[in-house]
Amino acid sequence: MRFTSASPSTSSASPSESSSDGVSEQLFTLDTALNTALGEIPGVLWTPEGATGTRPLILMGHGGGQHKKAPGIVARAHRFVAECGFAVVAVDVPGHGDRPQDEEYHRIATENQARVEAGEDRAPLIAEFQALVARRTVPEWRAVLDAVQRLDDVGAGPVGYWGVSLGCGLGVPFVAAEPRVRAAVLGLGGALASAEAAARITVPVEFLMQWDDERVPRAQSLALFDALASPEKTLHANPGKHAEIPRFELDSATRFFTRHLT
Amino acid sequence: MRFTSASPSTSSASPSESSSDGVSEQLFTLDTALNTALGEIPGVLWTPEGATGTRPLILMGHGGGQHKKAPGIVARAHRFVAECGFAVVAVDVPGHGDRPQDEEYHRIATENQARVEAGEDRAPLIAEFQALVARRTVPEWRAVLDAVQRLDDVGAGPVGYWGVSLGCGLGVPFVAAEPRVRAAVLGLGGALASAEAAARITVPVEFLMQWDDERVPRAQSLALFDALASPEKTLHANPGKHAEIPRFELDSATRFFTRHLT
Repeated sequence: MRFTSASPSTSSASPSESSSDGVSEQLFTLDTALNTALGEIPGVLWTPEGATGTRPLILMGHGGGQHKKAPGIVARAHRFVAECGFAVVAVDVPGHGDRPQDEEYHRIATENQARVEAGEDRAPLIAEFQALVARRTVPEWRAVLDAVQRLDDVGAGPVGYWGVSLGCGLGVPFVAAEPRVRAAVLGLGGALASAEAAARITVPVEFLMQWDDERVPRAQSLALFDALASPEKTLHANPGKHAEIPRFELDSATRFFTRHLT
Repeated sequence: MRFTSASPSTSSASPSESSSDGVSEQLFTLDTALNTALGEIPGVLWTPEGATGTRPLILMGHGGGQHKKAPGIVARAHRFVAECGFAVVAVDVPGHGDRPQDEEYHRIATENQARVEAGEDRAPLIAEFQALVARRTVPEWRAVLDAVQRLDDVGAGPVGYWGVSLGCGLGVPFVAAEPRVRAAVLGLGGALASAEAAARITVPVEFLMQWDDERVPRAQSLALFDALASPEKTLHANPGKHAEIPRFELDSATRFFTRHLT
């Protein structure tokens, strides 16, 4: 793990580190043996300014077409750090953000778009694509946890996961596979992609669903919630389209993580 | 409105008033012209101890077979008063608590029980019964608001409604009919009973559903949430049976009412 141009202990004037509202932001690149063919994983770590010692860590998965510093990721990360004192990490999914275009993914996405325009049902295509990408992101994200938890100002504390839409499609198999994750906020995803992995999740889950989601059929969302094996899981459904999660759900997520990670 | 044996201004040693944890509890009886045939409506009012002036008021509707001081009502009322400074009022539904048995309701309930035992579907029977009772409770509860809002330590502030199960079946038509209600927590109810009235509700609603409810079919709960015309409505679904709403939902209801009534 390499902070882009300086170590985390350098002054905030370094290009890799900046801070606002008491939240320090550090860009990094992670080289892992997993990624020899793919180059490196670019990431960003947010911590409370001047933090020392072990703290809960939230890994956030961004949406499709977005990246590690998409506005929705940054706003939530700041809240989790400033209000709860957590560390938050996000990395670019292959083919997104600062990562090179992936030929295979690009070809499949283009083909899928054409199939949808030709009248094919979108949901199973998205599901299949997300399952393909997850085979790469699950080991990548586990390597990110390994690296970030070795930092002095993060440490091996409890881990949470936050991800909706693509972040849910990739997050469900990640949470199912990674025992360090103790609680997860997931949503805007359907059972087609992830029911099998969901049935292996037993940690508390807050599951967000948009009642008028134009991308994920209502029955698919309900079926994914249903498939989670977690004894404690809560479905929060709100009116509106895919991207219209109401602001108060961030309050709820903040309390959810506080309840389960502290 | 008559406090059972003393006015609200008398000392807390009076039989009608007691207090604990800063919450004052006053029993009362409401005589209304609506109830000449039925006797009086017994109720209970909780306020912050030593309260003066106008404050938000929450009317709570109890569950079937319960009463105005059922443990779930008392615990929630204390929380709303102690944490938010609200006033809370609850009254016995006809045929419940300190009210005389109602011959017609008793006959119907007995018949329904026999029909369920004979294999008939329970949900439509409950729905029909709740619609019948609501024709009486809607005007009664409106009269309760009139009376309680005339008290100096309550006043004509914003009103909330909390009620699940029977309290939802009776609450949906009440909230639909009563413009003073600005926000409602409802749940454990189905569309058969109340879809038509739900379509007239436009205030924010937090709707509680138990995912494994043995009394309300899942599709019926979802259909009632769907029927609400409120632009802001949130479905909270949790695993467990009808009576197993998790404790953290009271935290959420407290914040919901705080957001909308203050």
